[in-house]
Amino acid sequence: MYICKVIGKVVSTQKNEKLTGSSIVLVRVVSLTAKKNEITESNEIFAAADTVGCGTGNYVLVTSGTNAGYALKNTNTPVDMAVVGIIDSGLGE
Amino acid sequence: MYICKVIGKVVSTQKNEKLTGSSIVLVRVVSLTAKKNEITESNEIFAAADTVGCGTGNYVLVTSGTNAGYALKNTNTPVDMAVVGIIDSGLGE
Amino acid sequence: MYICKVIGKVVSTQKNEKLTGSSIVLVRVVSLTAKKNEITESNEIFAAADTVGCGTGNYVLVTSGTNAGYALKNTNTPVDMAVVGIIDSGLGE
Amino acid sequence: MYICKVIGKVVSTQKNEKLTGSSIVLVRVVSLTAKKNEITESNEIFAAADTVGCGTGNYVLVTSGTNAGYALKNTNTPVDMAVVGIIDSGLGE
Amino acid sequence: MYICKVIGKVVSTQKNEKLTGSSIVLVRVVSLTAKKNEITESNEIFAAADTVGCGTGNYVLVTSGTNAGYALKNTNTPVDMAVVGIIDSGLGE
Repeated sequence: MYICKVIGKVVSTQKNEKLTGSSIVLVRVVSLTAKKNEITESNEIFAAADTVGCGTGNYVLVTSGTNAGYALKNTNTPVDMAVVGIIDSGLGE
Repeated sequence: MYICKVIGKVVSTQKNEKLTGSSIVLVRVVSLTAKKNEITESNEIFAAADTVGCGTGNYVLVTSGTNAGYALKNTNTPVDMAVVGIIDSGLGE
Repeated sequence: MYICKVIGKVVSTQKNEKLTGSSIVLVRVVSLTAKKNEITESNEIFAAADTVGCGTGNYVLVTSGTNAGYALKNTNTPVDMAVVGIIDSGLGE
Repeated sequence: MYICKVIGKVVSTQKNEKLTGSSIVLVRVVSLTAKKNEITESNEIFAAADTVGCGTGNYVLVTSGTNAGYALKNTNTPVDMAVVGIIDSGLGE
Repeated sequence: MYICKVIGKVVSTQKNEKLTGSSIVLVRVVSLTAKKNEITESNEIFAAADTVGCGTGNYVLVTSGTNAGYALKNTNTPVDMAVVGIIDSGLGE
């Protein structure tokens, strides 16, 4: 799973009907420097269905691909990423 | 899902017969700078089936992989990306 | 789908028996500069099953992942990329 | 499969219920220089379900995508990466 | 499929039981410069199940994702990459 930081919500009024009811958050991919184990926020962003009630600023686990569907109530929703966990403190320490 | 900007349509006369009837748009991947939260348009482009009636200049949600098929009427169409939502204003603000 | 340029054929005599009969082409990923909308050929290459009769120099749509199989006669062929369309003139203009 | 180095555990109290019981490790993608065959640790990190009892510092094989599920007891767990083997000594030598 | 060069074997004694019997090789992703069509070996490496009897130094076709499973005797093996062909001479010429 990607390690990401939640940076906001995505609002989409005009969308595929199968997306109705999904909470979509905007996440930023996070890396960890090899030299000093420091968290680095990349410029790379994705949108993911929230299945855990995450909030802006949380570090989260994001599952991508077909398996993201297993986190959703309806597995044939057309999303390819889902937030599946909020990481407790300690990343990079 | 990728966050992309629609930059045009893709016209393909000679194509796989299972693609007939699909509207294919050209999209550019968008990132958001970590420092200033500024939208940056990359050089990376993809083609995606449009399922929401998007137009050039729209910021959109693009689902990739097998799950893109759930957005289409015929799930076994040989496309691996689908536009599933138009993002309302506010990205990066 | 990736936008690629066909750069040749791939010849493989010693191969998995399930690949027999597939026409495999070598393709180069293409990007489009954000500033001037100019086509840029990358160094990144892939091999893909040809399902449309493409030729060297064509710009093509390449579907990757499981869904590439829907373009093939035998969906359980062990390829992960298929050329599904030849792009008509106009890309980047 | 990716070649990764295990760098720690991921603790997530608030998570999707289908993740309960999975041991999640933090891994760093490893590359091997073309010139000198030297192992290089990247800044790119992922979280993966551990199916082999790996420990921090181990070089491991990480399967991604749907097939990662085959390594788990419950194949419809919403994870997209699984550690499937610990590499014996000799990588890059 | 990726175009890769085989650089060795991967030995893993402690592994997921479903990997038993698979021959795993280490491969390096290869690119082809756009300007001179010269083969360039990257630092990016992967591990893949060998289904064709490849050897170190061979240029090979590597299928990734779920479809890699179609090349294996047991399609629900937890690997996400398989060598499916050895490329005959001529790449980049």
